[in-house]
Amino acid sequence: MKYSAIFAKTTKQTPKDEVSVNAKFLLQGGYIDKLMAGSYTLLPLGRRVERKIEQIIRTEMDKTGAQEVLMPLLHPKEIWNETGRWETAREVMYQFEKNDKSYALSFTHEEIVMDLIRKHVSSYKDLPVKLYHFSTKFRNELRAKSGILRGREFLMKDLYSAHASKEDMTHYYWQVADAYTRAFEKIGLKTIIAEAAGGVFTSEHTHEFQVEAESGEDTIYLAPGWKYAKNKEIMTDEDMARSDVKAITSIEVGNIFPLGLMYSEKMEVMFTDKDGRRKPIWLASYGIGPTRVLGTIVEVSHDGRGIIWPVSVAPYVVHIVSINQDAGALHDKLSSKGVDVLYDDRDAGAGEKLSDADLLGMPVRLVVSAKNAGKIEWKERQTADTELLTEDEVVKRLQELQRSTVTL
Amino acid sequence: MKYSAIFAKTTKQTPKDEVSVNAKFLLQGGYIDKLMAGSYTLLPLGRRVERKIEQIIRTEMDKTGAQEVLMPLLHPKEIWNETGRWETAREVMYQFEKNDKSYALSFTHEEIVMDLIRKHVSSYKDLPVKLYHFSTKFRNELRAKSGILRGREFLMKDLYSAHASKEDMTHYYWQVADAYTRAFEKIGLKTIIAEAAGGVFTSEHTHEFQVEAESGEDTIYLAPGWKYAKNKEIMTDEDMARSDVKAITSIEVGNIFPLGLMYSEKMEVMFTDKDGRRKPIWLASYGIGPTRVLGTIVEVSHDGRGIIWPVSVAPYVVHIVSINQDAGALHDKLSSKGVDVLYDDRDAGAGEKLSDADLLGMPVRLVVSAKNAGKIEWKERQTADTELLTEDEVVKRLQELQRSTVTL
Repeated sequence: MKYSAIFAKTTKQTPKDEVSVNAKFLLQGGYIDKLMAGSYTLLPLGRRVERKIEQIIRTEMDKTGAQEVLMPLLHPKEIWNETGRWETAREVMYQFEKNDKSYALSFTHEEIVMDLIRKHVSSYKDLPVKLYHFSTKFRNELRAKSGILRGREFLMKDLYSAHASKEDMTHYYWQVADAYTRAFEKIGLKTIIAEAAGGVFTSEHTHEFQVEAESGEDTIYLAPGWKYAKNKEIMTDEDMARSDVKAITSIEVGNIFPLGLMYSEKMEVMFTDKDGRRKPIWLASYGIGPTRVLGTIVEVSHDGRGIIWPVSVAPYVVHIVSINQDAGALHDKLSSKGVDVLYDDRDAGAGEKLSDADLLGMPVRLVVSAKNAGKIEWKERQTADTELLTEDEVVKRLQELQRSTVTL
Repeated sequence: MKYSAIFAKTTKQTPKDEVSVNAKFLLQGGYIDKLMAGSYTLLPLGRRVERKIEQIIRTEMDKTGAQEVLMPLLHPKEIWNETGRWETAREVMYQFEKNDKSYALSFTHEEIVMDLIRKHVSSYKDLPVKLYHFSTKFRNELRAKSGILRGREFLMKDLYSAHASKEDMTHYYWQVADAYTRAFEKIGLKTIIAEAAGGVFTSEHTHEFQVEAESGEDTIYLAPGWKYAKNKEIMTDEDMARSDVKAITSIEVGNIFPLGLMYSEKMEVMFTDKDGRRKPIWLASYGIGPTRVLGTIVEVSHDGRGIIWPVSVAPYVVHIVSINQDAGALHDKLSSKGVDVLYDDRDAGAGEKLSDADLLGMPVRLVVSAKNAGKIEWKERQTADTELLTEDEVVKRLQELQRSTVTL
C-alpha cells in the first residue's frame, strides 16, 4: 500500500480534551478520528489493526466449539423488563421511545441471548450452547476521558454459554479462560487473571483479564501463593495487612462471569433433563472489547516517538522509507510475495518520513537510499540497531515475519 | 460441522405475521431468529452466509481502491442539522435525548463521512477519497413485512467517494457500478441496472441494482434500445405508451448515487484545487445490504421444499445424510481436505433428514447408506438426478466446488 493513497495522514495536532496516550498516538497517526466525546471512527489503518485482533479472537472462540451469530442492537423494553434491568441499568443504557414503543440500545446481550435460547432449547440434548458475536455496544459514559479505552460506543466480542449443570458450565468457563489467555498472547498482551466480585450478577467470583499499565484505571493485588490476583473489591483486611502484597495498576481487557441461574430463573429459560425434570439452564458470559484491546496495545507498547505494534496485529509488517529515490519496485516485489507492506512514496523530506514511521509504529522499517550502496537498511521499531541487507535477505526475513501476522 | 452441534435446528413453525418466502425458509431452517418486528438475529448458519456475502463485496470494493473504515452508529444532532436532515428525515430516523444531548442512530452516513473528509482533506492531492464500511443501519419502518428484506435494523455496506471534479466522480461511479455487477454475479444474483430519480439527493439520475423476482416490491421497465431499465418514477408518458415496453417486478439489492455538490456546499467540505482556488468536493455514495442480499437469494432461489444456495455463499458446500450407518469418517476426511461440510449425525429417520437437507439447501447432498454397496449417492440441490460415486470421486468433485465458495 502506498502511503500517499491512505486516507488520513499523520498530524501533529491532538484535541485538547484527549489526555490519554492511546488517543494521542492513534489520532496523530491517522488510526482513528473523533466524532464526539467517547465516539471514534476507525480509519483505514485502525480498522486493519482491529480486524486482525478480531480474527485472532474469532479463531480462539471457534476452537472452543463456540458458534458465531449476530444479535440485534436495538432491543424492546419488554425483554429488559424481565430481569428488571430496564430500571436497574437505566443510567448506563440509552433508552428511548418511537411510535409508542420503548427501545434500548445494546449495552450487553444476556437478556437477548436468553430469549434466543428459550426459543430453541428444550432438552438436555440441545445443551451446551456456545454463541458469540462481534458487535457494537453503547454505554452512557459520563466521563469519556480514556480515548478508545472507554467509549460511549465500542466494539465487543461477547460470548454466552448455556449448560445443563454447574459442573459443565465451570468446565467450559475455564476452557474459555485459557482461550482468552492464548488470544491475548497472540495479540501481544500479557494478561494477569484477577478475581473480582460478581456484583449484581452472581455471588460467585468473576475473573478479569488485566494488563499491567502505568496508565491503568484499575488496581490489582498480587501475593506469593495466590493462584490469581485480586481486585480491590474482594481484598479483605487480612489481605491488605500482608507485607508481601504488591499492588499494580492495570487495564482490564476482558472478563468472564459464571452467572449461574439468575437469568434463567427470572426469564424462565428451562430445559428437560435426563431425569425428565424441567430445570433452569446455567449461564456464563465472557467479553473482550477489540477496540479497547487496540487502545491497550498502544498504552503498553509505545515510546516517546510513537506506537510499537506487535507483528501479529500491525496494520503492515514493514514500512519502506525511500530517500531521494524511488522504491516502487521493492514495494511491488514484497507485495507480490504476500507481505503486508506500506511504502511512503510522498515527496517529503527524510526527517518527516522517518518520524512518521516511528509514530505509525510498523514492526520493521526499511530505508532505501543511494548512500546504502545497493543494500537496504533494516531497523526494527523496538530497537535502535540497524543492519544493511541485500534485497533477497530482506524478502526472506519479511516472508518469515509475515507468518506471524493475521492475513486479512 | 456436525448438525447435532449447530445452534437452532429446523422447525415447521413460522410466526403468523411472516408472509414472505425468505422469512419462512430462513426461520424454518434455523438461519435467523426474530427478536421483534423487523429485527432478526443471524444464527450460526445465517451468519456464515452473510459473512461469505460480505467477503465477496469487500474483495470487489478493495479492487476499486476503496479503503475499509468503521464509522460510529450514534450521531450528534449538530451534524445532521448541517444538511437539514435532522428535520427532513425525522420519520425514518431514530432520534432521542440523553443527559441533555440529542442523538440519532445511523440510517445512512453521508453527513458523518463528510465531517471526516473536511477534517482530513485540504488539497486536490488528498483526493479522491474512497471509504466504505460494513455496519448497522436503523430505519423506522412502519410496516416491516418482508422478512429480512426490509428491517428496522440491518447490515449495510456503504461506500462514499469524494472527488475534485465531476469527471473524476463520474468515472469512479461507473467503476463501482461494474464492481457491484461483478459482486452480485459472484453471489449468484443476476442484476439489472435501472435508472431512478435522485429525489431530494440530486437532480442527476441515480442507479438501482434490481433482481427480477415475482415477490419484488419494485417494478422496473425494459424496452429495446434502452441502455438501462427505468423505474416507475422516471417513466414518461411517451415511455408508457410504447407497445414494446416490458414491466417486471424486482427486488432492489443495491443503489448508487452521484450526489454532486449538495452535501459539500451545505457542510462546507472544501479543497484547494491546482489553480489555488477553494472548491467544494464532489460526493457519490453507494450501498449494498448484505442481509437484504441474503433474503433476496432465498426469494429467487428456492423450490417448494426449501432454499437452493449458490455454491459461492452456501454455509456449507455439502450436506451428508447417513441412513442407518455412521458417516463420521467421510465427514472428517472432507473436512481435512478443506471442504465446508455439514453432517447430519442425528439419530433421526431418513425422511426427516432428507427433507431437512432440502430445506437447508446446501448445493450438494451425499447419501451414505448400506444400500449403495460401498458407493455414495451424489445429488445436487437444484436437480432431481442422483449418481453413485466412489469416495475418491466425491472428494475430487467437492474440492473442485470448494474453490467456488468463500473460505471463512
